Amino acid sequence: MNRFLDLADFSRDQVVDLLDLARRLQERPEPQALAGRILGLLFMNPSLRTLSSFQAGMMRLGGTSFVVTPGQGTWQVETRTGAVMDGGAAEHVREAIPVLASYCDALGLRAFAEGRDLAADLAEAPFQLMAGLCNKPFINLESAVNHPCQALADWKTMDDVGVPRGGRFVLSWVYHPRALPLAVPAAALHMAAQRGMEVVVLRPDGYALPEPIMAKARRAAAESGGTVSETTDRAAALAGAHVVYAKEWGSPAVYGDAEAEAALRRPLADWRVREAWFANARPDCHFMHCLPVRRNVAVADEVLDGPRSRVVQEAANRMVVQMAVLHRLLRG
Amino acid sequence: MNRFLDLADFSRDQVVDLLDLARRLQERPEPQALAGRILGLLFMNPSLRTLSSFQAGMMRLGGTSFVVTPGQGTWQVETRTGAVMDGGAAEHVREAIPVLASYCDALGLRAFAEGRDLAADLAEAPFQLMAGLCNKPFINLESAVNHPCQALADWKTMDDVGVPRGGRFVLSWVYHPRALPLAVPAAALHMAAQRGMEVVVLRPDGYALPEPIMAKARRAAAESGGTVSETTDRAAALAGAHVVYAKEWGSPAVYGDAEAEAALRRPLADWRVREAWFANARPDCHFMHCLPVRRNVAVADEVLDGPRSRVVQEAANRMVVQMAVLHRLLRG
Amino acid sequence: MNRFLDLADFSRDQVVDLLDLARRLQERPEPQALAGRILGLLFMNPSLRTLSSFQAGMMRLGGTSFVVTPGQGTWQVETRTGAVMDGGAAEHVREAIPVLASYCDALGLRAFAEGRDLAADLAEAPFQLMAGLCNKPFINLESAVNHPCQALADWKTMDDVGVPRGGRFVLSWVYHPRALPLAVPAAALHMAAQRGMEVVVLRPDGYALPEPIMAKARRAAAESGGTVSETTDRAAALAGAHVVYAKEWGSPAVYGDAEAEAALRRPLADWRVREAWFANARPDCHFMHCLPVRRNVAVADEVLDGPRSRVVQEAANRMVVQMAVLHRLLRG
Repeated sequence: MNRFLDLADFSRDQVVDLLDLARRLQERPEPQALAGRILGLLFMNPSLRTLSSFQAGMMRLGGTSFVVTPGQGTWQVETRTGAVMDGGAAEHVREAIPVLASYCDALGLRAFAEGRDLAADLAEAPFQLMAGLCNKPFINLESAVNHPCQALADWKTMDDVGVPRGGRFVLSWVYHPRALPLAVPAAALHMAAQRGMEVVVLRPDGYALPEPIMAKARRAAAESGGTVSETTDRAAALAGAHVVYAKEWGSPAVYGDAEAEAALRRPLADWRVREAWFANARPDCHFMHCLPVRRNVAVADEVLDGPRSRVVQEAANRMVVQMAVLHRLLRG
Repeated sequence: MNRFLDLADFSRDQVVDLLDLARRLQERPEPQALAGRILGLLFMNPSLRTLSSFQAGMMRLGGTSFVVTPGQGTWQVETRTGAVMDGGAAEHVREAIPVLASYCDALGLRAFAEGRDLAADLAEAPFQLMAGLCNKPFINLESAVNHPCQALADWKTMDDVGVPRGGRFVLSWVYHPRALPLAVPAAALHMAAQRGMEVVVLRPDGYALPEPIMAKARRAAAESGGTVSETTDRAAALAGAHVVYAKEWGSPAVYGDAEAEAALRRPLADWRVREAWFANARPDCHFMHCLPVRRNVAVADEVLDGPRSRVVQEAANRMVVQMAVLHRLLRG
Repeated sequence: MNRFLDLADFSRDQVVDLLDLARRLQERPEPQALAGRILGLLFMNPSLRTLSSFQAGMMRLGGTSFVVTPGQGTWQVETRTGAVMDGGAAEHVREAIPVLASYCDALGLRAFAEGRDLAADLAEAPFQLMAGLCNKPFINLESAVNHPCQALADWKTMDDVGVPRGGRFVLSWVYHPRALPLAVPAAALHMAAQRGMEVVVLRPDGYALPEPIMAKARRAAAESGGTVSETTDRAAALAGAHVVYAKEWGSPAVYGDAEAEAALRRPLADWRVREAWFANARPDCHFMHCLPVRRNVAVADEVLDGPRSRVVQEAANRMVVQMAVLHRLLRG
């Protein structure tokens, strides 16, 4: 394993193996496994969990890391091929990535979607370009339409709390003051399908996930024995749910058009998860969210502070599963 | 010891023990004492000494650390309970603190006063809330009205230079272009009282410290055999002083009213420490300040660069005493 | 060796020895050589390579480091002696440097030129002041008119690719949207002269390097058997070149006058390195640049992506040579 870009690059069994390794490292720590190894972390966008959990994970395995944050003490970087760099960016990733790769043993990169052109963001072209510039093991810390570390942590969290392989997983759109990227919904959807779950995407009109994302999830479901469907009917979606996974995302229908997007989401502030949503879910239905979450905007306090909430556990599992990823990338 | 929030949580003897441990670690380094241990550092506000001395202190004990700075590469965080998060903050401390705690073995937090409501800042409610969200050893890196690491370093500095237990300690207000928090004056006042000193608070009209802060210091003095008084008379205050501890703070009388505060401080630019202040102090009177200090605004170059100044030594002692705190928290 | 401020502080043989140590550490790593040692890094200005390569270099030798970036989570700092600090800076280097030095075993500082007064920048007075405030080994991470770590990496890069000692080294001015400091051109010029090369400075009218910089290079050349000349004639300069070293810099003739500088550089956008420049250079002529570089503004993609480009190798050598500097400073 030399790249950790997308759970779809791995078979279901390979993911299960990786999670077994994560659990083994929890039970039997290996505090010197990565002694002398250096992880470089390049953040084009803000982070709390990824920033701290990757550093902590390396430390727990005896390794070290450094962080580079363009615009925060480091030059702004250009990603477009062929750009005439007469604007704000002083450095191009064509130099920055190979240079950073030369200093470390593995490199992680966060680069969110640009949010202007849906096809371009779906193609992940800049991210693939950047990954291709790195001749060391490479980790996706969240790209335009993927977040495999989050997906892996979410999978483990469901294992930890006993959600059955074929359980009902409802990915629900929730309100946010502005359009957010598709990375987490796409990754969570695919993960649940790959895990073999009965996946339902619940979202208002205008917020259907792009067909390539849905198709990829259906392919994963087909291989693992799961199913994927979508609906605007909240009551129908949540009936019998094992998990409600809430996520904010921007409308693919008017992608990149901020005004149209704002008009579309304005009447949707009611898409805020409350305890009442769970009336017909399973009594022990879990609530999940990748964080950060806007309290009382996307999700009510009563849910986040209630017994269904797994959000801190998901975040805690970020470090745990990433240690397995790092171990696999750097120890083989 | 599981919390380091306030020197007032410890008896005088316990503080003396902690300082003994600090000195022991200076004399007999333990470069592997905290091997494998991780300190998380969460800075809601700027830092130079705390940021670097905690990292360096962990390294000198064989441990490691990570730093999270909301708004600097990390999401802005909300601290208010029940907030409807439709503003700038994307993340709430109710998630951020437990998540960060899950990655580390001890967590330090800096969160300055809001400076709007004196009673609220004195109550330290947000800080207590945040400390309560952390299930790991927790360190106050400066809260609304406390800075126990600075106070501990100052105590040790006075020990190092031979200031007697019952020496005369003058905490003097000094000028600054704007209102600063009460954390350091409150902490220094209590520390000197707890040490058993003859404490005098020297401040212009309008800058008397809040009664709860004074009362807490008087209680500490009563237990340790010290005294606490206050005055606006500079000559009387400094007569026979062993230590002048300068600090800038905002007027508690017009707390949160920026305009009234500015009017109150405008005529006070003369409250700038100069060598002439020390005319009737003891000849070897020490000058102390927690840093950062605005040269020639709060304190003249002649004092900072003169033989009385202990400011660099105080800052150097930050690392030394914090190593003892970390050792006690993580090794027991 | 207790200071690494300027290659000119060392004889040619001493530099060669340092490069030998760098190569030895590449071939025979010493992963525990600096165990327990702490490097402090103080960045007054942005960085990517220096920031990450120094951290990584310490890690590869078993040491650790911390980073302080005024204005990015840390107070802004004042450098002027005698300043009345009633502006944006809350802290003076007279405190900040000794304090940071007390936490670490070696301190590195980056402080770019102010760009207002040429004589002042050439004198490096603030940097010398700051270096003088540090009682630990001290490293120049780029000052007003020097960048010895870059120069050392460039020297090694030329060794690595077989550029002969007496080869022809063309330092060429290239276009940039605004005036940049003289640090890298000054350091590269001196380095090539000290290496014993046939050095040609190619620059448009108005961009001749200041006489003290040229004179220093001529002195180095005289000692090492090299030569230093300058010209505005690109074809003549590049004829037979072994190396073209491109760099952007501001006009010394109108230093600090932004309007006059902009007028002077406006017609010079053609000073962008393209493959055609190399028509009469040696066929294997190398292209060098310290990075960051603005693609298609200072240098065309065809050169940066072509076989002549050594820019990533130069940056990779930053870590390698800095490990030798750290080893020498901290192990002697």
